[in-house]
Amino acid sequence: MQFWFDFASTYSYVAALRVGDECARAGMELEYKPFLLGPIFTELLGIKDSPFNVEPIRGRYMWRDLERLCEKHRLPWRRPTVFPRNSLLAARVACCAGTAISTLTRAIFRANFADDRDIADPAVLREIIDSGGADGRRLVDLAQTPEVKAQLRVNTAEAQRLGIFGAPDFVADGELFFGQDRLEDAIAWARRT
Amino acid sequence: MQFWFDFASTYSYVAALRVGDECARAGMELEYKPFLLGPIFTELLGIKDSPFNVEPIRGRYMWRDLERLCEKHRLPWRRPTVFPRNSLLAARVACCAGTAISTLTRAIFRANFADDRDIADPAVLREIIDSGGADGRRLVDLAQTPEVKAQLRVNTAEAQRLGIFGAPDFVADGELFFGQDRLEDAIAWARRT
Repeated sequence: MQFWFDFASTYSYVAALRVGDECARAGMELEYKPFLLGPIFTELLGIKDSPFNVEPIRGRYMWRDLERLCEKHRLPWRRPTVFPRNSLLAARVACCAGTAISTLTRAIFRANFADDRDIADPAVLREIIDSGGADGRRLVDLAQTPEVKAQLRVNTAEAQRLGIFGAPDFVADGELFFGQDRLEDAIAWARRT
Repeated sequence: MQFWFDFASTYSYVAALRVGDECARAGMELEYKPFLLGPIFTELLGIKDSPFNVEPIRGRYMWRDLERLCEKHRLPWRRPTVFPRNSLLAARVACCAGTAISTLTRAIFRANFADDRDIADPAVLREIIDSGGADGRRLVDLAQTPEVKAQLRVNTAEAQRLGIFGAPDFVADGELFFGQDRLEDAIAWARRT
């Protein structure tokens, strides 16, 4: 199953902290697919901000919903003081994280949504990566090479081809499931085929 | 628990056909709250159509998602040839349905989303109501009285005060839950308090 996410996305945080265990329990392989929502929102909605900021009524609901979801799933939660955080460098790091992708993805999401840290800051990212047992300096440098930048653009273009319009998403056997609350449906779909 | 819905809303259909049984199983009282999404979308988004039509990528996902959801919950489903249908008269009927509200709500939703019938047509509504064992002519006439029209406006204004920005919604002990897939969370919330 593929897990499509953006490090700036609140509901992606909930999914990122749940998807590994749920897939392991189902005996399914998991492929992490970092991408950028920004260009998609700009193309589809003509906005340069999160829809949750552009539509404050929906935004107010989302913040309360996140509190409830994190309580339900026993996840740490602190509302970030900056939203959305710029997720470009973090997404590039994820694109070149190799086998550390699962650990690093969770650590970066926790930094943003449990510890209110600025994941756009290279120094912060290096520290998060080091704490996760990988080489922060090496990965953050690698993340800024043309090859890795191109990989993230390829991912975002693939997300658009899949019809992705928000995050998180799961792709199971060619079927797109949007939203963290559809994780179980996506797993059930993958297992039935 | 309150169930907020619009007869034009696809996800409200799924919720409407599930909410009665789920609440009965939980031993909870259910209050049906028909309202109109149209004025809310106009106020919040500046649109005069369904967001699923305004955003066709999201719309394409929704139609496929509805097929899957109806298969999952074993509900009849036929994509309506007109979307969204004008739900004004149906919502007014629901406002004056009294104790028949549960039966009539399900029957009207099924007419729109399983039988592709024009629920904006008074003759169709009368027939649906008659088939449900109530008096179609009486209810459709009553639905067009100033008192019932005012009741629907009151409901829609209350939805706006609650921070509702889409449908369906559940309100459990003062907490708003948006989306048919949050029905179980809303019930759990109501039961814990």
